[in-house]
Amino acid sequence: MQDRQPRGIGRDMKSPIAVVVLAAGAGTRMKSALPKVLHPLAGWPMVRHVLENAARLKPTRIVGVVAPGAKEVALVFAPHPAVVQRKPRGTGDAAKAALPALKGHRGPVLVVFGDAPLIATATLRRLVEECRKAKAAVGVLGFMARDPTPYGRLIVRDGMLERIVESKDTDATERAVDFCNSGVMCIDGALIAPLLGSIKNNNVKSEFYITDVVGIARADGHAVIAVKGDESEFQGINSRAELAIAEKALQQRLRLAALEGGVTMTDPDTVWLAADTRLAPDVSIGPNVRFGTGVSVGAGSEILAFCDIEGVRIGRNTRIGPFARIRPGSEVADEVHIGNFVELKATRMARGAKANHLAYLGDSDVGGASNIGAGTIFVNYDGYGKWRTVIGPEAFVGSNSSLVAPVRIGRGASVTAGSVITEDVPAGAVAFGRARQQTKKGRAAALRAKLKARAAAAKKAGKK
Amino acid sequence: MQDRQPRGIGRDMKSPIAVVVLAAGAGTRMKSALPKVLHPLAGWPMVRHVLENAARLKPTRIVGVVAPGAKEVALVFAPHPAVVQRKPRGTGDAAKAALPALKGHRGPVLVVFGDAPLIATATLRRLVEECRKAKAAVGVLGFMARDPTPYGRLIVRDGMLERIVESKDTDATERAVDFCNSGVMCIDGALIAPLLGSIKNNNVKSEFYITDVVGIARADGHAVIAVKGDESEFQGINSRAELAIAEKALQQRLRLAALEGGVTMTDPDTVWLAADTRLAPDVSIGPNVRFGTGVSVGAGSEILAFCDIEGVRIGRNTRIGPFARIRPGSEVADEVHIGNFVELKATRMARGAKANHLAYLGDSDVGGASNIGAGTIFVNYDGYGKWRTVIGPEAFVGSNSSLVAPVRIGRGASVTAGSVITEDVPAGAVAFGRARQQTKKGRAAALRAKLKARAAAAKKAGKK
Amino acid sequence: MQDRQPRGIGRDMKSPIAVVVLAAGAGTRMKSALPKVLHPLAGWPMVRHVLENAARLKPTRIVGVVAPGAKEVALVFAPHPAVVQRKPRGTGDAAKAALPALKGHRGPVLVVFGDAPLIATATLRRLVEECRKAKAAVGVLGFMARDPTPYGRLIVRDGMLERIVESKDTDATERAVDFCNSGVMCIDGALIAPLLGSIKNNNVKSEFYITDVVGIARADGHAVIAVKGDESEFQGINSRAELAIAEKALQQRLRLAALEGGVTMTDPDTVWLAADTRLAPDVSIGPNVRFGTGVSVGAGSEILAFCDIEGVRIGRNTRIGPFARIRPGSEVADEVHIGNFVELKATRMARGAKANHLAYLGDSDVGGASNIGAGTIFVNYDGYGKWRTVIGPEAFVGSNSSLVAPVRIGRGASVTAGSVITEDVPAGAVAFGRARQQTKKGRAAALRAKLKARAAAAKKAGKK
Repeated sequence: MQDRQPRGIGRDMKSPIAVVVLAAGAGTRMKSALPKVLHPLAGWPMVRHVLENAARLKPTRIVGVVAPGAKEVALVFAPHPAVVQRKPRGTGDAAKAALPALKGHRGPVLVVFGDAPLIATATLRRLVEECRKAKAAVGVLGFMARDPTPYGRLIVRDGMLERIVESKDTDATERAVDFCNSGVMCIDGALIAPLLGSIKNNNVKSEFYITDVVGIARADGHAVIAVKGDESEFQGINSRAELAIAEKALQQRLRLAALEGGVTMTDPDTVWLAADTRLAPDVSIGPNVRFGTGVSVGAGSEILAFCDIEGVRIGRNTRIGPFARIRPGSEVADEVHIGNFVELKATRMARGAKANHLAYLGDSDVGGASNIGAGTIFVNYDGYGKWRTVIGPEAFVGSNSSLVAPVRIGRGASVTAGSVITEDVPAGAVAFGRARQQTKKGRAAALRAKLKARAAAAKKAGKK
Repeated sequence: MQDRQPRGIGRDMKSPIAVVVLAAGAGTRMKSALPKVLHPLAGWPMVRHVLENAARLKPTRIVGVVAPGAKEVALVFAPHPAVVQRKPRGTGDAAKAALPALKGHRGPVLVVFGDAPLIATATLRRLVEECRKAKAAVGVLGFMARDPTPYGRLIVRDGMLERIVESKDTDATERAVDFCNSGVMCIDGALIAPLLGSIKNNNVKSEFYITDVVGIARADGHAVIAVKGDESEFQGINSRAELAIAEKALQQRLRLAALEGGVTMTDPDTVWLAADTRLAPDVSIGPNVRFGTGVSVGAGSEILAFCDIEGVRIGRNTRIGPFARIRPGSEVADEVHIGNFVELKATRMARGAKANHLAYLGDSDVGGASNIGAGTIFVNYDGYGKWRTVIGPEAFVGSNSSLVAPVRIGRGASVTAGSVITEDVPAGAVAFGRARQQTKKGRAAALRAKLKARAAAAKKAGKK
Repeated sequence: MQDRQPRGIGRDMKSPIAVVVLAAGAGTRMKSALPKVLHPLAGWPMVRHVLENAARLKPTRIVGVVAPGAKEVALVFAPHPAVVQRKPRGTGDAAKAALPALKGHRGPVLVVFGDAPLIATATLRRLVEECRKAKAAVGVLGFMARDPTPYGRLIVRDGMLERIVESKDTDATERAVDFCNSGVMCIDGALIAPLLGSIKNNNVKSEFYITDVVGIARADGHAVIAVKGDESEFQGINSRAELAIAEKALQQRLRLAALEGGVTMTDPDTVWLAADTRLAPDVSIGPNVRFGTGVSVGAGSEILAFCDIEGVRIGRNTRIGPFARIRPGSEVADEVHIGNFVELKATRMARGAKANHLAYLGDSDVGGASNIGAGTIFVNYDGYGKWRTVIGPEAFVGSNSSLVAPVRIGRGASVTAGSVITEDVPAGAVAFGRARQQTKKGRAAALRAKLKARAAAAKKAGKK
């Protein structure tokens, strides 16, 4: 080690932060073909939460460390670089893989884990700040565990973190310690290369453990500190059950934030929010509403029970549901009504437009104050291409109609109920596309007798 | 004060009760354009629960106190009077606003709060009765708080309530008291005017606090008591989060009462009841059912999963859902089936009628044993008026039909599948309103080639 | 008693087991016309859980004891015999009713209760094994109760169960015992007849209590033991509220098992599984999905939010929902898509087939890679019989079509949107069944004026 003089992160209070996200773990306990860190939480791949929480610290560099071939994980980091840890040789080895990408960085390096997505930005910031204050070479985030049994313990003496003892290596005194290791570290960028380089793999698994930098830094006379966070943030995710627990914890945070912002929820436990859901004050949400990513809802709008909503900007004083589904690429203006058993896909509905019952509106524009009748289908797919339906303002599309796209219905035009529309309807026109009713008086009895006989014959044939 | 002789509510055990509901609070922490006491709980505006719970005591007068301009709040009190508190000058001032409406009333006056809807009738009754027994001039409802920190404390000595100390004014001894003030009071009607009149506003906020009547009455030598209720009833509602907590508490009460009445619920936590929902024994309810107001369900009926039901009387042995929605103004008789993705609005279905799949029945009467096919739409709206569809008994409406209202289908008539019906169909007739099928042999390949080419051309055009 | 020599179950370690299921209780607290043990839990009648858990011990005989006339309960036991307890004269009397059916059986007899469905097979096995080890004549399953107040206590001395004291008969010492009686017993088959025969009914209710065999066996000098199980397994079900609690406990077990098997659930608390649901690894399940009985789902398939699924084998990499309903008798192959507001009933969908929006597919076969357009209805019911729709592979059924069954659509055939199809469509053909569009330019204004006038007239008439 070229520098025996105690120093640390605090040397330059303004030095920028770098973040290393370790995301190369195998996650075999997930029993999944999908890499662990890509399992979704509140609509985002787990690792994206880690990335976004760290990014709020405005680091000058973010480096992901991924497993060989994990292209989809690398994509989450883009445009930040993702380096490959070639073999699973421990966390110390993983962090070392990031060193080339950290070249020249002199400020604090935050090392976080792709499978610990609940750690808040404020907690990470506190770790960095306390490291700066203490001029620590290394800082470790810890937590007081209700049950410390499974965790490594942080052994602190005279305000310095002396070492981290793995759970299985604790003696009786250490076992009684309930200050536990979260894994998250802040390391002086000027020291990170020699510190990581000094880690040995003389252990049962022949792995390099990043926790060893604590002892190494202390042996070199550097300040090393432990910073306390709340246990609730440090749940790691190693199984589907833990994934479900983390999802619930994250949902509770998102729901509480929404309530505090003036949103009403009849039963918050049955509203599923995405990490990026934006709800204005006086939005009201019934029980059982799922928000996919990319949704914003304007003030005074109501989302009634049983809705599934994704990728849509919803205006003010609009009413959605119950039993509505909105798919990505949609835009719903103010005072729109979307009712039960209605599906929107890539559809813009202008102010005051209505589709109240059993309808499919796909790849379309619906003009202001237009009314789409019950049972109407926008026939956007012909087996090969997807085509648009464009409806002008103040149009009236009668119930149970089929609009075969590409097709345009002009301003103020009317389509009569039950019509199949294959050609454009000019503004102000009325379009029919249905057969005239014929009524055969007194013929129901004969028809029924015939149907009854058919059913009886089939039954008899079936019994043979 | 004209009367120094200790006296109180007990003087005349039979004297009638009056109720004052304070509902003029601003509720700024709700972050809402809607007055706080109008936010809904179990389908009713919050303050209506307070009103109904008090009304069960059969008071001879009920007086609401509302903020200026709060007409919608006043409407909840109708036909009872609602007086206006002109300025927000504290609870004592609010109660004073009710005095003219209490003129001549000599019995106990119960003062309750519009934002504390969980207090049960039995608890209010107990407060009045204990005041009567103790011949108290004033009685205060209190509760033992798990965490008394935020509450005013009730200081009791020798069985008398001496005073109420605001949380911030407590000394060390008082801070240790965990008997807390709910705000609810019972005041002798003969004393209420002088008691309220004696309240001073010499405090930081220059407000009149009704809690001061305790000290005033004691100073006058009157008996004042504190009556204990259960903490769970005294949750006030000041934010959306507290609203959600109160909703959950109320739902748990309603669910338990239903279960005790012989209703089966697969998962009671996912059944949302309204305050007035009436469920007969052996009603069975699947997971995720929301009841709006005005629903009763007869014995033996099943509500399957994922239903949203409001404003309907449902008979016996009827099956609703899954995924059914019933809107107000409907009546569903015995042995009816309403299946998935079916909406009813202002519709009467007679005994044994069925609408099993994807249908909209609006503004209609459906006769006994009639069958409404899948995909059928009752076209009740023409853009200007709503019209009725009337279907006789034993009719058969084929799938995917459109019945353009106003229209009548007679007894035993048949409508063939896919028909648009614009004229009445007499009893026993068969009606068609669809084109005859034409089949072009061997033409699919050419059609597909054309569609494929169109898609390819569009794709190419899109890329340019 | 003909045999005073201590002996017991252990005499012959290999002797086969018999099981007696007591299922004759009235269950009046359920307030139900349905016998208590038939109330459903995770899709099965409660007593079937008891039966299946016991059956995993591979007993050579299973005997149900049912109330007079309880044919539906007896049906659950089939093909095992169900004997009738003629009068409700206690558990000892009920067990005696099973004796003829046990004739000649010499091994352990497990006596279990139809209303205690949460007791796991492993717990029952442990009871039998410990009885064998101890050569006990009788073994009783007990549990440490958090609140023992309502239960009979197990009084153990020197490793022997001395007696069972009913809660109301306990003295102060016995009241302090928290080892409680579950009711479940294991009795030596060679001794069960004399033991049950010795029970007296000299008590207030004149009933025969099976718990008395403990004292009788001890008095005869036999070994009697108590075996401890976990309290969570011993919840009896006497009311709808307890039924709901048991359902929740069972669901939690089923959900945890699914998660441990590699299934992802966004919110496990809102997934309702049936006792027989089979989910492969990497199945992903959104919030609010209900599984009825008879469902299996292959690896990589997704069940999105708000689905109700019953009686279907689902292949791999298939996507269902949101808002889909699948009814029994269906088979869904790999890579199928079933979208929102789609109902399947007794329908087979071959590999890659799609029905993405608002459709009813009943009694049908849909060929591989075929596409069923939005709003399509398979018209399977004519009021008398149900008929099949058969669609070949690679067919394209346009939106809002009605296929009137029985009908066949051939391989690669096309049905145009909005058609009513009443005749078979050969392979490669194109079928139309819709009217040609007519467009009346400039006529919307007149139409609207007419409709507006009609609405105004009706309003005026209504006011008269």
